[in-house]
Amino acid sequence: MATNNITYTLADWAVSLKGADIPQPTRYEGTRSLVNWIGCAIGGSQHDAVMRALAAVTQFSGPRQATVLGRPEMLDELYSALLNGISSHVLDYDDTHLQTIIHPAGPVAAALIPFAETRNISGSDLLTAFIVGMEVECRIGNCVYPDHYDRGWHITATAGVFGAAAAVGRLLGLNPREMSWAFGLAATQSSGLREMFGTMTKSFHPGRAAQSGMLAAILAKAGFDSSERAIEAPRGFANVMSTKQDYSRIVDGLGIEWEAATNTYKPFACGIVLHPAIDACSQIREDLNNKPLAVQKIELRVNPLVLELTGIRNPTTGLEGKFSVYHAVAYALIYGGGSPEAFTDKAVNDPSVVALRDRVTASVDPAIHEASVKVLVHLENGGVVKKDIEHAIGSLERPLSDEQINDKFLRQSSEILGQNRAEEALKLAWAVEELDAAGKMIAQACSPIRDVATM
Amino acid sequence: MATNNITYTLADWAVSLKGADIPQPTRYEGTRSLVNWIGCAIGGSQHDAVMRALAAVTQFSGPRQATVLGRPEMLDELYSALLNGISSHVLDYDDTHLQTIIHPAGPVAAALIPFAETRNISGSDLLTAFIVGMEVECRIGNCVYPDHYDRGWHITATAGVFGAAAAVGRLLGLNPREMSWAFGLAATQSSGLREMFGTMTKSFHPGRAAQSGMLAAILAKAGFDSSERAIEAPRGFANVMSTKQDYSRIVDGLGIEWEAATNTYKPFACGIVLHPAIDACSQIREDLNNKPLAVQKIELRVNPLVLELTGIRNPTTGLEGKFSVYHAVAYALIYGGGSPEAFTDKAVNDPSVVALRDRVTASVDPAIHEASVKVLVHLENGGVVKKDIEHAIGSLERPLSDEQINDKFLRQSSEILGQNRAEEALKLAWAVEELDAAGKMIAQACSPIRDVATM
Repeated sequence: MATNNITYTLADWAVSLKGADIPQPTRYEGTRSLVNWIGCAIGGSQHDAVMRALAAVTQFSGPRQATVLGRPEMLDELYSALLNGISSHVLDYDDTHLQTIIHPAGPVAAALIPFAETRNISGSDLLTAFIVGMEVECRIGNCVYPDHYDRGWHITATAGVFGAAAAVGRLLGLNPREMSWAFGLAATQSSGLREMFGTMTKSFHPGRAAQSGMLAAILAKAGFDSSERAIEAPRGFANVMSTKQDYSRIVDGLGIEWEAATNTYKPFACGIVLHPAIDACSQIREDLNNKPLAVQKIELRVNPLVLELTGIRNPTTGLEGKFSVYHAVAYALIYGGGSPEAFTDKAVNDPSVVALRDRVTASVDPAIHEASVKVLVHLENGGVVKKDIEHAIGSLERPLSDEQINDKFLRQSSEILGQNRAEEALKLAWAVEELDAAGKMIAQACSPIRDVATM
Repeated sequence: MATNNITYTLADWAVSLKGADIPQPTRYEGTRSLVNWIGCAIGGSQHDAVMRALAAVTQFSGPRQATVLGRPEMLDELYSALLNGISSHVLDYDDTHLQTIIHPAGPVAAALIPFAETRNISGSDLLTAFIVGMEVECRIGNCVYPDHYDRGWHITATAGVFGAAAAVGRLLGLNPREMSWAFGLAATQSSGLREMFGTMTKSFHPGRAAQSGMLAAILAKAGFDSSERAIEAPRGFANVMSTKQDYSRIVDGLGIEWEAATNTYKPFACGIVLHPAIDACSQIREDLNNKPLAVQKIELRVNPLVLELTGIRNPTTGLEGKFSVYHAVAYALIYGGGSPEAFTDKAVNDPSVVALRDRVTASVDPAIHEASVKVLVHLENGGVVKKDIEHAIGSLERPLSDEQINDKFLRQSSEILGQNRAEEALKLAWAVEELDAAGKMIAQACSPIRDVATM
């Protein structure tokens, strides 16, 4: 395979593809991704990280014509992209491309929705751009994963910036050369360190990727030139930021095999590696009719990534709780599931949860897949409950149903928007393909009713 | 040495240092750096890259209260930082920390000047912040150079973002913990690929570093938290982005040995590695009384980095000319020097320059230092002229005098600002320590007289 024109091939595809050439199942999965993402953006919109970022950047906003999802405030398109990206990721409740652990919707949709809100773009074109953006970032992710992630890069941000550039660039009508420049400008802004996990800065990543990718497309449209080989050049993205480069994963089967169609949606508000254990413990609780258990100890056998990412033994904040398999398991066994409430300061300091998490041990086993877990619960009465999970709920094999996605959406948005408005927003998101000015309609439905003072 | 608190140590130092504790020679070199940088920002302000970036971002600007140096337009502080960074670097005429090839003033001053313009900050505090910012970025650069640069990172951007965060964060009154967060937010935005050299995106790097560093400080001030070990953590900046980590270069001798005092200023408008060869050929031309030479061939012996960075054989644009030692040498031999005019489309396509550059050969020799060159000019009449340069003009050993810096400033700014205004701007820049509202006075002097339509 010629590897000297990867960037251009991808750029050409991203601007040339017709929406009608995207298979219907992929468009349907794209709509599910959008619905799930919008719910998460609304759900996270009241978080401290969002409030503080809003306080910091509002003074610098250009014309405030784009909704910050879930909030009365508006900002210009670029800062709305930043804020939407933060809010949609801050609860770790969004979506996952399981092959790369990319959360694909965030960097793309966070930019697309405000961009479309301020322009006359049909819902069909919006959905096409969204799917193209996700496809671009997941394929770039496939090219460098896992080495790139193992080195310490937060791949949602580093690959996501290309997705945002592709989606916005397509709507801006870039030609293939300009889209190559947009990818160059995206590559040179590609950043985001895993060291930030456990702080507000983790959620900054998809937001900044959205904002930087949109800026890349806007600069390219203005003729600001860049490398046209930013991905594959000797000092380009893949070589500088990864030891693995499999360019076939970017260009092979473009438009035929769809990575965007393999997106999955989180049932629990935390990193995907915790999901099997939470699923197992929630099932154990249900099996025992939700009765309180007198537990002696809990033994987990997990994929090594679980302790690498979520090994905090004694979390003290809700955010730290997301990085503690011990907390997640204890909470799921007592209360079931892993909703956003499971990862609040209150839940993490709940005495019964704290007492139980001290009885959890975890051992790693590389033979156990990331989507799997083995759990043994030893009861005080000498009984042992065993649960092996092969595919956690929310995986490709056990995907969330539309109904579960709707339920997740409404649980996240009803309090913030009010029940009626939340249901209206949900309806519009599902109907995206039928809408004329989709960005405007959806974005406006996703804010609480504004009083004049906040306009 | 304990390496688990590098970030915090640097942050604490950056906010705690008193201006009076900076030795006078370092403050003086800081002033020279500022004067040189302002001239470059004005000099580059009419470049296409600046025009296109301005066309792209103006629509998104918040309150337009900060000068884009050299231009009638104003933008908000963050976009002015972006534009100032682009214009000051686009001619490759700025400054160099020779140990790391960082161009230190750009990312820091590009952010500081607009930030100070809109706030009541004394010139003394401005200069202190500028020196602290340069010190931070050069020390971080020393920690990872050369491996980091060799891997493909444009170190002016990747280290510069920390410098901008330090300078702005200091003026915002961050406490040490908040400054650690600002460094975390800077680290996670640290980016910029050498693949972009030869395109407009190279000059985007210091601009975006300035903008991102300022944003980091502003977010930290608003309580947006981040890692407090962003530089040294296992998945932090130094480990993810470099194979070499010498943390002693960050913390040893802080406040005693000053990297900022080792800044140098370019006599020629191109990469520092070309300077020895241009210097040599300009001297040969002068030795021969500036007479036209009938040259048979020119032989260069150069450091390997020269051909790695500037090996373009047949440049067709001015920008490509900056990456062609063959062009630079031919131009210097015919016209002398390497002013911005040497790297225009016109100069690169000048038939006499093209004819001569085809007669230039270059061989690499690792024994030749980056600041050195050996040149042999074989004349048609059989004569041979030899010139060995040990330390190129503009190096630490042969620094530009204040007078040469002034001359460079006025040559870059007189046409753009008008002679009187250029001289006034130069006077104010030198007097920075004496000014009350230095940012405002300097920035306003650095724009052409505005008519109402451009305000």
